[in-house]
Amino acid sequence: MELWYTEEHSEHVRFSIKVDKQLCSKQSRFQRIDVFESPEFGRFFTLDGLMMLTEKDEFIYHEMIVHVPMATNPNIRRVLVIGAGDGGTVRELTRYSTIEHIDMVEIDEEVVNVCRELLPQTACKLDDPRVSLRFEDGLKFVRSKENEYDLIIVDSTDPFGPGEGLFTREFYGNCFKALTEDGILVNQHETPYYSTYAKSMKRAHKRIKEFFPVCRVYQAHIPTYPSGHWLFGFASKKFDPIRDLDADRWNALGLAMRYYNTDIHTGSFAIPTYVKELLAGDEE
Amino acid sequence: MELWYTEEHSEHVRFSIKVDKQLCSKQSRFQRIDVFESPEFGRFFTLDGLMMLTEKDEFIYHEMIVHVPMATNPNIRRVLVIGAGDGGTVRELTRYSTIEHIDMVEIDEEVVNVCRELLPQTACKLDDPRVSLRFEDGLKFVRSKENEYDLIIVDSTDPFGPGEGLFTREFYGNCFKALTEDGILVNQHETPYYSTYAKSMKRAHKRIKEFFPVCRVYQAHIPTYPSGHWLFGFASKKFDPIRDLDADRWNALGLAMRYYNTDIHTGSFAIPTYVKELLAGDEE
Repeated sequence: MELWYTEEHSEHVRFSIKVDKQLCSKQSRFQRIDVFESPEFGRFFTLDGLMMLTEKDEFIYHEMIVHVPMATNPNIRRVLVIGAGDGGTVRELTRYSTIEHIDMVEIDEEVVNVCRELLPQTACKLDDPRVSLRFEDGLKFVRSKENEYDLIIVDSTDPFGPGEGLFTREFYGNCFKALTEDGILVNQHETPYYSTYAKSMKRAHKRIKEFFPVCRVYQAHIPTYPSGHWLFGFASKKFDPIRDLDADRWNALGLAMRYYNTDIHTGSFAIPTYVKELLAGDEE
Repeated sequence: MELWYTEEHSEHVRFSIKVDKQLCSKQSRFQRIDVFESPEFGRFFTLDGLMMLTEKDEFIYHEMIVHVPMATNPNIRRVLVIGAGDGGTVRELTRYSTIEHIDMVEIDEEVVNVCRELLPQTACKLDDPRVSLRFEDGLKFVRSKENEYDLIIVDSTDPFGPGEGLFTREFYGNCFKALTEDGILVNQHETPYYSTYAKSMKRAHKRIKEFFPVCRVYQAHIPTYPSGHWLFGFASKKFDPIRDLDADRWNALGLAMRYYNTDIHTGSFAIPTYVKELLAGDEE
């Protein structure tokens, strides 16, 4: 027999992965959680059927969402991570001894339980003593915070389902307030290539720009996400990701990477003309 | 009913596109040629079942294979294009009034006939008076050439089937000889992500490096190619694609683009650490 997982990247495009075995399938209060074992990608994990990560390429997403802000401002001490129940973002953050505290706010405890059990590759640092895990709505959590974090990473699901509120004006305004004057916000920004996703990207970008004086977009090649062309939003109160990068200083840390390097840091902010036009255009 | 085209990106990964209609299917002396109409990508064209281009994203491949060398050396006058029967590479080249002559050598005349009929979006400039179309084996054609071209673009199919000889040591050596002292060679280089393709990339890179003093790799996001992460090899006798880029001069040409811009020119040479390691490693 053959077993195939299929994700619809658009109504007319399907991406299918041969599966050896389904390791877990459960319905939490918020969403359906599945983990599969596959010959090409190792284990992979989906929420409501949408790809969250594979063991083969999660390093790309997690290195790019963490090291771009960390190399821009090495003095980041306090970090808030919203979403990211798989632990990959926290794993990369804990590599910096200079980080003192990480609040990780994940709405769905069941996601963390499943990942601890089946995805140790990403969940391995959730017990780091600097990490404080909270199972609540990130949107509500951030409302009461003021001047507390040097970095907020919004590692949300797609803006359909439980992640939806994380793409609103109110949310980004509260993030601004929760950040110190050195504050940086990084947001997973979807793909520009398929129209449903591009709409979310434009909306997020436009809303973040209402609050943050510095607002840039960078990209990475993530083969198992729709189109493989994934964007991140970089917003800050004062740091510019290119001007303020001190490559020698970051390289002196000696952190071994598989995707990120300080050339790609700068290079990833060079985005295609059609993406620039989408970002500059009106929200539909 | 539903009609779906499926390409195997690896033995364990499938990419499927909903098709409205198959517009053409023929077997030439060299390969099977198909053209389809689809709601997501417009028309698309395959050889031996492998995706060559879609109307939606062919601009990315063609802009990146042409404008990177053209912006590096604006004095390119004589160009040899090998493969590229769809005409997209020639279309982009003909936008430069400074180019005097283009030899296009395509092994399979049937490909050009089909594209002229069904893909006018790419084939539209094949009748430009500067273009000399030859239907023969590029490998043989280039053997007799010496000091003739300022630019050779190897826009080949994957190195399985008729394109295979275009990935050999003999071929790259002959390209070196066919180039002037200002010569640049650009080679489509496959994806680093899936192992079969990565092997071809490593082999091509290693062989090109035996002849050319400047040898770099750049990348683009091409959603309908395997993994969406596509590489190009840039090799030259003296021009460095970053040092010799004069962005102001190229921008003064006023050519409208959808993907390429002079920031992405430089940014595309910043490649992930794992790709650098593949390129530096031994051939398997």
